[in-house]
Amino acid sequence: MAKEAKQPKELRPYGEMSQKKLLKEKDALTQAYNDFKARGLSLDMSRGKPSAQQLDLSMGILDMLDGRSIMKLSHGVDVRNYGVLDGLPEAKELMADLVDARPSQVIVLGSSSLNVMFDTVVRGMLVGFAGCKPWCKLPQVRFLCPVPGYDRHFAITEHFGIDMINVPMHHDGPDMDMIEKMVSTDDSIKGIWCVPKFTNPQGIVYSDETIERFASLKPKAKDFRIFWDNAYSVHYLYETIEIPNILELAAKAGNPDMVFEFVSTSKITFSGGGLAAFVSSEANVFEMKQTMTVQTIGYDKVNMLRHAKFFKDKEAVLEHMKKHAEILRPKFEMVLSILDRDLKGRDAGTWESPRGGYFITFEAQDGCARRIVELAKGAGVVMTDAGAPFPYHKDPHDSMIRIAPSFPTLEALEQATNIFTVCVRLATIEKLLKEIE
Amino acid sequence: MAKEAKQPKELRPYGEMSQKKLLKEKDALTQAYNDFKARGLSLDMSRGKPSAQQLDLSMGILDMLDGRSIMKLSHGVDVRNYGVLDGLPEAKELMADLVDARPSQVIVLGSSSLNVMFDTVVRGMLVGFAGCKPWCKLPQVRFLCPVPGYDRHFAITEHFGIDMINVPMHHDGPDMDMIEKMVSTDDSIKGIWCVPKFTNPQGIVYSDETIERFASLKPKAKDFRIFWDNAYSVHYLYETIEIPNILELAAKAGNPDMVFEFVSTSKITFSGGGLAAFVSSEANVFEMKQTMTVQTIGYDKVNMLRHAKFFKDKEAVLEHMKKHAEILRPKFEMVLSILDRDLKGRDAGTWESPRGGYFITFEAQDGCARRIVELAKGAGVVMTDAGAPFPYHKDPHDSMIRIAPSFPTLEALEQATNIFTVCVRLATIEKLLKEIE
Repeated sequence: MAKEAKQPKELRPYGEMSQKKLLKEKDALTQAYNDFKARGLSLDMSRGKPSAQQLDLSMGILDMLDGRSIMKLSHGVDVRNYGVLDGLPEAKELMADLVDARPSQVIVLGSSSLNVMFDTVVRGMLVGFAGCKPWCKLPQVRFLCPVPGYDRHFAITEHFGIDMINVPMHHDGPDMDMIEKMVSTDDSIKGIWCVPKFTNPQGIVYSDETIERFASLKPKAKDFRIFWDNAYSVHYLYETIEIPNILELAAKAGNPDMVFEFVSTSKITFSGGGLAAFVSSEANVFEMKQTMTVQTIGYDKVNMLRHAKFFKDKEAVLEHMKKHAEILRPKFEMVLSILDRDLKGRDAGTWESPRGGYFITFEAQDGCARRIVELAKGAGVVMTDAGAPFPYHKDPHDSMIRIAPSFPTLEALEQATNIFTVCVRLATIEKLLKEIE
Repeated sequence: MAKEAKQPKELRPYGEMSQKKLLKEKDALTQAYNDFKARGLSLDMSRGKPSAQQLDLSMGILDMLDGRSIMKLSHGVDVRNYGVLDGLPEAKELMADLVDARPSQVIVLGSSSLNVMFDTVVRGMLVGFAGCKPWCKLPQVRFLCPVPGYDRHFAITEHFGIDMINVPMHHDGPDMDMIEKMVSTDDSIKGIWCVPKFTNPQGIVYSDETIERFASLKPKAKDFRIFWDNAYSVHYLYETIEIPNILELAAKAGNPDMVFEFVSTSKITFSGGGLAAFVSSEANVFEMKQTMTVQTIGYDKVNMLRHAKFFKDKEAVLEHMKKHAEILRPKFEMVLSILDRDLKGRDAGTWESPRGGYFITFEAQDGCARRIVELAKGAGVVMTDAGAPFPYHKDPHDSMIRIAPSFPTLEALEQATNIFTVCVRLATIEKLLKEIE
C-alpha cells in the first residue's frame, strides 16, 4: 500500500529535464499518441462493472429454485407471496455473516445498496432519526465527504441540497483530526460517507485506529450518522484483510445507533440482480421498519431464497470471491505494471497498489487530470470524468483519475493503459513547458 | 354491479321486527355464535394475497433462464450486469402492453408498485414536479382520497404529513363534482389516489365519463398529479372490461403530465417477486429518471428478462389471468351466495358483486362495522380492521368492511363467511335493540 517513491535508474523526472529535452520527448509522445488515435479504438476504463467472465461464476444461482425447492418453505414463509418486510431469515443470516453482525441487525432489501443509501438519506430528510427534526426542516444540513470518494454517494447528498465538505484521505483512512473536530462542534453535520475497506477509488483500507476513532466520535448532533458503505467487504485480490467491527465498537463507545452499514452482493453474484442489506443497531432497524412498512409490503424474496441457497455461509462466499480474484488480479497487475514501466520515476504522478476492491487511483500532477482524461478520450479511451470522485465534481487540485480495470478484457486493458500513460506523460510535459515559458 | 335491493320473500328487514322478535333472533344467533366460538377456529379473510394455488400458475417463470437463454443478450444488454436505468426493453414493452401505453412512457422497477408510489410521493416532497417547489417547503399539502380506498395509499400520504380529504365513492367512481371543484380552486391539493378498475375495496370500475372528467380536470396547482394505481388492470373474474386510456385522454385535454400510472405483476406472477412499472408522459418519465439516476444504477434485470420470456405479450397475460379467475371465481361466488342467503332482505347491509379485483366490500348499517369485526375476531375470524379503508383509519359512518376471499381455501372461506353473517346479524340487532330502548 506504500506510495511508489523509489526511482528506477532508467527514467528521469520530467521536472529535471531541459526545455529542449522536454520538447523532444513531447514530439515522440505526440507521434505515439497520433498513432493510437489513427487506430480508431474504442476502449473503456471508466466502469466499475464486473466482466462477463465474473458474472459467469454465479450462473448456478439460476438453478437454485425449482418447483420442489421453492416449496420447501423458508421458516413457514411462501417466498412467492407477500410478506416478510425485513427479509427472508436465511438471507438475513447470510448478509449478517458477511459483516459479522447478528441477523437481528439486518434488513435485506432489493438489488441495489445505493438505493438503500438513497432511501436512508430520504428518511433523514423527511422523517428524521432518533426523534430529531427531519433534515428538510433545518436551515442547513451538511455531510462530510472523504475525498476522493464514490461519486454516487456525493450525488445523493447533492440531489437533496445537503452541503458537502471535503475531508482529505490519508493512507489509513480519512483525516480523523478534522472529522472529530467538526463533528463534535457543529450540529449541522448530520453524516459522513465512508467506504472503509478498499475505498472507491483509491483501494485504501481504513486502519484499526481510524475505525476506533470513528466509533468513538462525540457528535454534537444526536442524529449524526456514519454511512458505512462496506461495498467491498469480501472483495480481496490477494490475502484476506479483516477490519474491526464498527457496530460493536460504536456500541461499546456509547454510540450504539451512530452507524448505518450497507452491504450488497452486486459484485459477488449479479450486479443486475443481487441482494442489498442495511445493517445497524436493533433500534435503528426498528426505526427503519416504521417507514418501510409504509413504503412496501416486502422485497423480492424469491431472489433472497436463491441467494441463500447458492451460498450456505460466509465461507462459501469467500471461496467464490477467490474465483473473482483470479479473474481480476491479472487485470490490476497489468495496469500497475504498465504504470510502473512508463511512469515510475517520471514524477508524473503517484498511485497505490490496492489489495482488493475495484479501482486504482492515479494521482497526476496538479492541474493535469482533466487534460489527461481529455487526451485519452481523443485517442478512444474512456476514463471516469476527472473531478467525478469529488463533491460537485470539483477536484480542487485537478489531479485524481479513477481507473477501473474490471470490465475490459486483458488485451483491451493493456492497450488502454498504454495509451493512458502516453496521455499522462504528454499532459505533464505540456504543463512543465507552460511553466518554463 | 347494481346494489342488491330486491327483497326475497323469506327474510324480513330487522328494522321491521318487534322487540320481542329481535330478542328471540338475537338468542338464536348468540347460540350459533357461541357454537362457532367453541370450535376455536382460526380463519382469515383480511389478506389480499393470492393463494398458493394461484402462485403455482407461475412456477414456469423459474425455468425461464439458464446459462444459454440468459446469454442471448437482450438488445445487447447483459442482464446480469449493471445498467439500463429504466428497465429492460422487453419488460418495458410487456408492461406498456398491459395498459396500452408506449414503451417510451414506461419505467420498469423492482417488485413493488407500492414502493414506486412511495418514491413518487417522496419525489414530490423533496424534489418537486414540473419545476414547482418541493412539497416539503409548502405550509400545507393536501391529497384527495376517494373512500373507501386502499389503506396503504393513505398510509403513504399520512406518513409524510400530507392532509387527506375524503371524497365519496359512487357506483361509477368517486364524486367528480367535488373533485373538479376542489382541484380547480385550491392549489394546496397536489394529488388524488385512484384505483380505476376494480377498486380496492369495492371492486367498482370507473365509468368512461368519470375517467374523461378526470382527464379534463383544470387543476389550480401546476404540480397536481393523479396517482392512477391500475393494480387490477387485467384481474378479471368474468368478462374482459376495458376502461379508457387516461394518459391519452389527459394529453388530448391539455393535461399531458397530470397522470402517474402504476402497474405491477404482483398478482399476475409472484407477489413476492414480480415487476412494477411507472407509466406516464415522456416528460414525466424524463423527470423521474433525473432522480432515479441518483437513486440506483438499475433494478433487477434478471427478473425482468424472466418475466418477458414467460409472457410474450398481453394476450399471454390475459390467458394466464383466466387461470387465476378460475381459482378466484368460486371463492367470490361462495362469499356472495352466503351473504345473499343470510342477509338479503334483512336490511343489515349492502354489498357489490365485483367483476374483478381482489375484494368484496360489505357496507353494514351505520355504527356496526367495528362491532362486526370485533365479534368475528371473537369467533376466530380475522377481518381487515374496520376503518382501515379510510384516511387516518376513521370511517365516518363506521360501516365499511373489506372482505378478501383470495387467500383462504374454499372450505375455510365458507366457514368464515357463515360466521361473518352471524356477526353482521348480531351487531345489527344489538344496534336496533339499543335504539328501541
